[in-house]
Amino acid sequence: MFKFVMPEVIFGSGSIHQVGESCARLGARNVLIVTDKGVTDAGWAAYAEKSCREAGLSSILYANVSINPTASEAEECAQRYLDHECDALIGIGGGSAIDTAKAAAILATNGGHLRNYEGVDRISKPLPPLVMVSTTAGSGSEVSQFSIIVDTERQIKMTIVSKSLVPDIAIIDPDVLATKSARLTASTGLDVLTHAIESFVSVAATPLTDVHAKNALKLSTQFLRPSVASRYNKEAKEMMAMASLHAGLAFSNAILGAVHAMAHSIGGRYPFLHGDINAVLLPHVMEFNALAVPVKFKEMAELMGEDVRTLCTAAASEKAIRHVRKLAVDIGAPLTLSEMGFEESAIPAISEIALLDACMITNPRDISAEEVTLLLQRAL
Amino acid sequence: MFKFVMPEVIFGSGSIHQVGESCARLGARNVLIVTDKGVTDAGWAAYAEKSCREAGLSSILYANVSINPTASEAEECAQRYLDHECDALIGIGGGSAIDTAKAAAILATNGGHLRNYEGVDRISKPLPPLVMVSTTAGSGSEVSQFSIIVDTERQIKMTIVSKSLVPDIAIIDPDVLATKSARLTASTGLDVLTHAIESFVSVAATPLTDVHAKNALKLSTQFLRPSVASRYNKEAKEMMAMASLHAGLAFSNAILGAVHAMAHSIGGRYPFLHGDINAVLLPHVMEFNALAVPVKFKEMAELMGEDVRTLCTAAASEKAIRHVRKLAVDIGAPLTLSEMGFEESAIPAISEIALLDACMITNPRDISAEEVTLLLQRAL
Repeated sequence: MFKFVMPEVIFGSGSIHQVGESCARLGARNVLIVTDKGVTDAGWAAYAEKSCREAGLSSILYANVSINPTASEAEECAQRYLDHECDALIGIGGGSAIDTAKAAAILATNGGHLRNYEGVDRISKPLPPLVMVSTTAGSGSEVSQFSIIVDTERQIKMTIVSKSLVPDIAIIDPDVLATKSARLTASTGLDVLTHAIESFVSVAATPLTDVHAKNALKLSTQFLRPSVASRYNKEAKEMMAMASLHAGLAFSNAILGAVHAMAHSIGGRYPFLHGDINAVLLPHVMEFNALAVPVKFKEMAELMGEDVRTLCTAAASEKAIRHVRKLAVDIGAPLTLSEMGFEESAIPAISEIALLDACMITNPRDISAEEVTLLLQRAL
Repeated sequence: MFKFVMPEVIFGSGSIHQVGESCARLGARNVLIVTDKGVTDAGWAAYAEKSCREAGLSSILYANVSINPTASEAEECAQRYLDHECDALIGIGGGSAIDTAKAAAILATNGGHLRNYEGVDRISKPLPPLVMVSTTAGSGSEVSQFSIIVDTERQIKMTIVSKSLVPDIAIIDPDVLATKSARLTASTGLDVLTHAIESFVSVAATPLTDVHAKNALKLSTQFLRPSVASRYNKEAKEMMAMASLHAGLAFSNAILGAVHAMAHSIGGRYPFLHGDINAVLLPHVMEFNALAVPVKFKEMAELMGEDVRTLCTAAASEKAIRHVRKLAVDIGAPLTLSEMGFEESAIPAISEIALLDACMITNPRDISAEEVTLLLQRAL
């Protein structure tokens, strides 16, 4: 038996115009718009404000979200929501802005500290209407039941999972992606690929999540290169936005694996781009996991466009792993943790925290502290 | 730009046990259970009552739903809801029971006559929590934004389409399908196939509905025969339940076409099984539609397992149409309207009403009154 949840989705060129109307449809009158500096500079925050105004709503802006948002940012954001007596939230940006909006929604209605909600299904009171606008084709947070927030005291990323965190409406407008740099396109695109692969081999995968994971895998391996190559390739942007949507639906319902568990742990201590960490760890974790789910690895190689008809599962898995490595090289992603500034001395602490992450539970192969350490050493 | 909506889905063996808890989770205390005699006799209504009791909820039963439910049944059902001060509805059964529960929910909260809500997006006030349990692997109503109710005065089936009609939770338990007769399995299974095909070629199809339509097409052509052959083939039942889910998600968001427009018109006047009417009309409408969407027809043939690599689209379309005819013959579905008791003299009136059905708008080929008449004559 399985469960599957998703928000109402509005997808396509120009869909960002619907953000105000979407809030109005959910009964909002006074909306808090949560975003970051990059999105504000690109003009999208002003766009959302205008859309609210046109729908007859008032709005307030919170634009202080950082790359790896912290609990204190969420608290500040929740305070802004309460001070202005808001009744709905828009998150507009990548995973950082959307996760902050979700976390602020928890605090504004359920009170306390975010630590109280860490883990699975710990939110009791209903959240206000949430309308999320994705500007990155990466995090999938606009459709997921996840919020990832840094606890600076403990230097970890808290994984909060709850059905209440599935937004009411997710807006995905590929036009918005044209304002992303090639660097960010590569990083978020490899996050999409990682979501697709980890959810496909997750122990919680279902026939319905598999459908989405497979589509995400196929689209991202096909369209990530051209999407990085040119900001004006409209088809590639649209297909990457679609890949991100499929990947988000897959991992929201099938959860993830060891790559994300380790990436959350590293991201709690280092200000690296989440997609970059995933890109480095992914092939190493694939090598480790292949023997747990050989048939799915062969299927993945096939979805990537490899001809594996005459190959055994082990040889086909090799092809899938090599395919992922080659893709990361081609689009200029970092290939080692060291080049990003990761220090070997951090490994013991990082391993310990990674083992406790909610995403580790659904990794297809059992994993020990020693094995996590070994994988991090290989990725150095 | 497109929109996509679906309820939370609980799928799998034993999921019917979750019905009471699902209502409780939505805040219900006193539930109206809407069903028909067949489902009650099979023991599933008592099951739902027990599940409510165990979740601490009280419940009332309305078990008078007919094969093609009427507006007066929906009114009676709404009255029962109001008299007993219910606060949520469970629909348990095929499309008939679920559509009646939806229609009763409209009347109980929005008042007036169902005619006021005919067409698209005419429901203004929010509906009470709706938990739907599908027992047929056919209608897809448990996940759709449709309710189809007979207006006996006008002798038509009213098509009511609204996002408000998407249930909160859909429960699909393949175990329940073992209590269906081979006759009903064939009829509802061909309804699934028709949903898959019509939504795939609909003018409102999107990349997301295509994913679901393709899965529905593949699964139903593969598993309908064994599902009809034995009530104990668990895999076939489960795959047909999955096919029905995919088909429901596809057509709820892409709408349908000429087969359903005509079937609604015929079903308003004759007490035939909806799936039987579809089964007869489908190949005729496919022949008519093929030239509008040749590439999608070739893709369909391929999904059915036909080798069409060396064929042009026209020849591949022929294969798809022949495949559908053969399937209907193999599982003993009716092949003509006459053998069900349809009279030629009804054609003019049936054509006229079919042209006005909401499903006709999304048929991929423009269609005139003369062409509808011609198709009905061919299907006689």
